[in-house]
Amino acid sequence: MLGNFSYCNPTRLYFGKDALEGLNKELPKYGKNVVLIYGGGSIKKNGIYDKVTEILKANGKTVTEDGGVMPNPTVEKLYEGCEIAKKAKADLLLAVGGGSVCDYAKAVSVSTYCKEDPWEKYYMRFEDVDNEIIPVGCVLTMVGTGSEMNGGSVITNYEKKLKIGHVFGDNVFPKFSVLNPEYTFTLPKYQMVAGFYDIMSHILEQYFSGTDDNTSDYIMEGLMKSLIHSSLIAVENPKDYEARSNIMWTATWALNTLVAMGKTTDWEVHMLGQAVGAHTNATHGMTLAAVSTAYYNFIMPYGLAKFKRFAVNVWNVNPDGKSDEETAKEGIEEMRKWMKKLGLVMTLSELGVKEDMIEGIADSTLVMEGGYKILTREEISDILKKSL
Amino acid sequence: MLGNFSYCNPTRLYFGKDALEGLNKELPKYGKNVVLIYGGGSIKKNGIYDKVTEILKANGKTVTEDGGVMPNPTVEKLYEGCEIAKKAKADLLLAVGGGSVCDYAKAVSVSTYCKEDPWEKYYMRFEDVDNEIIPVGCVLTMVGTGSEMNGGSVITNYEKKLKIGHVFGDNVFPKFSVLNPEYTFTLPKYQMVAGFYDIMSHILEQYFSGTDDNTSDYIMEGLMKSLIHSSLIAVENPKDYEARSNIMWTATWALNTLVAMGKTTDWEVHMLGQAVGAHTNATHGMTLAAVSTAYYNFIMPYGLAKFKRFAVNVWNVNPDGKSDEETAKEGIEEMRKWMKKLGLVMTLSELGVKEDMIEGIADSTLVMEGGYKILTREEISDILKKSL
Repeated sequence: MLGNFSYCNPTRLYFGKDALEGLNKELPKYGKNVVLIYGGGSIKKNGIYDKVTEILKANGKTVTEDGGVMPNPTVEKLYEGCEIAKKAKADLLLAVGGGSVCDYAKAVSVSTYCKEDPWEKYYMRFEDVDNEIIPVGCVLTMVGTGSEMNGGSVITNYEKKLKIGHVFGDNVFPKFSVLNPEYTFTLPKYQMVAGFYDIMSHILEQYFSGTDDNTSDYIMEGLMKSLIHSSLIAVENPKDYEARSNIMWTATWALNTLVAMGKTTDWEVHMLGQAVGAHTNATHGMTLAAVSTAYYNFIMPYGLAKFKRFAVNVWNVNPDGKSDEETAKEGIEEMRKWMKKLGLVMTLSELGVKEDMIEGIADSTLVMEGGYKILTREEISDILKKSL
Repeated sequence: MLGNFSYCNPTRLYFGKDALEGLNKELPKYGKNVVLIYGGGSIKKNGIYDKVTEILKANGKTVTEDGGVMPNPTVEKLYEGCEIAKKAKADLLLAVGGGSVCDYAKAVSVSTYCKEDPWEKYYMRFEDVDNEIIPVGCVLTMVGTGSEMNGGSVITNYEKKLKIGHVFGDNVFPKFSVLNPEYTFTLPKYQMVAGFYDIMSHILEQYFSGTDDNTSDYIMEGLMKSLIHSSLIAVENPKDYEARSNIMWTATWALNTLVAMGKTTDWEVHMLGQAVGAHTNATHGMTLAAVSTAYYNFIMPYGLAKFKRFAVNVWNVNPDGKSDEETAKEGIEEMRKWMKKLGLVMTLSELGVKEDMIEGIADSTLVMEGGYKILTREEISDILKKSL
């Protein structure tokens, strides 16, 4: 735990089959104007919309709807959401959906009363929030992003081919989040496993950085082992409550700032994946899966000791009689086998990327400095080509 | 993650060599009357007292002192602290010390404006707090109890031979805690290793319960491995910053409610240890160490699968060709070897317990129901006798 840091995560979580009852404890804390934010309307089919609106009514709230949030929320939708929130004089933004819906709600929460273009201020210049923030609450229907307990908010600008995440401070974290594992049961398998890999990627981005012995690394190894174990159960039986609930909890703790404390982090896979997303509109978790193997095989020699530790501690690779590199490679190979078992997208071609798009994607890829190797422009292209 | 639960931990932590600077961010949030709570005066020798009072003065605070908090804070001291806090019209209780000082500060915070005897209300009847709570902040100088980020508060009533902990809700958690690993460097070795075992015991109490596959178990295995690794470095070189900082962070997360979420817990070792403490005034962590091996050997057959998992996942015991019981026993034996390496007290005799005290201690031992075996009165006596 080197370096100084401060930690606070004030989000209140309600977890379990009866988690939605938590709304009755939270809603009285806010004024009467609630903007209900949701996505493509699946919550109307599975009954969650009805349950939520019933509780809102019982608590005397005036509800304004802001539906149609897309999987990669756009800057245009953000501007629209700000108008809705302003007109409704929103006292609370209630996001019902997955990570994109939660991310979008946070973007609206900091942007509605922003005095300049919020895209420029928060997503291009990464400035701190100095205007009024509308409180956000979440009812989660898909796991993966961790958005339910952090300040992360990713917005896509297709015109500029940029998909950018701002990690806001804890004053922007959701005030509360409702986590009912049963709400994730009806998600299509493609989205489900994409979310599983998103969780894994969040952990790997924070794990593969630094050479110190850090308690966070041990916690992450535990989270990864729990995820691997439960994901293999869930992919066979998506309604296994124990597996889905463990995955939901793991997802929250994989990206609510805890495991990054006192250590450096990478996030280059997310930069590659987000660039792919800006050019293809592909599902976030799948973009990460498609570039991961090539990326980790490339940086492995630069962080060999950690990759060896990963192989032994997470994948139970027996290092006896093997070189460190052999052990490390076996770890990545074990992860690859697990990814295939889940049915993840393993190549960019499957996401519609053609060779002539590579340079454009590379242009959109931000270069991070916390990993084992700071990538050159050429290395980015090479990794993307190897991922085709 | 079975069952419903809600989770919120609002404590703000400042961690690292510059952590004390966090006081300058926190103090302006409170009124001018601060009661400075500390223990036997070691903070006056190592300079922490001077640094803290300087910051308090720079922030314009009126400081009233409440020193002399003993390692096992007594109910009489609690009554005294309430008078001091009331007279000072305390806006903030600033605890500078180890777990006992933090525990005591929380007790004063809920008891000062309690309309009846707080010992009766909070420690005998475990009632919820319905009176004004004075905010608490902590500057930690010893690790182990986790008191810096939870609602736990243990008070001892020697007259009644009772040492009882109330786990208060998150409205009683410290508002902030300052965690500088360097402040723990000067602690005598006996107290240091007692704290290390206190951490281990907190994890074991939550780990050895339940048969479900729980993310919390995986996190706890990570925390235990980090603790084992760093404790062996720290016992050789107490000023190894990396080791001490990892231990400090592990201690906080071992008992800030996270790893208990979604699972059952035991806490019988603490009941045995606290009973020993009420009869001997021995150091808390040492009372736990002295009774642990006998307790875990006794309950092992009732939770065999978990004890096997403990041996394999935490102590790297190779289970090949062994019965589950042999593997499980080897795990407990490995833990015993680690305890001896740290120089922990391994028997009650070393703490001054004589055979004729056993029945009295057994009388003071509360029986918990979350472990693998609910102990009978005779089993409690047997475990205590085996620990002599």
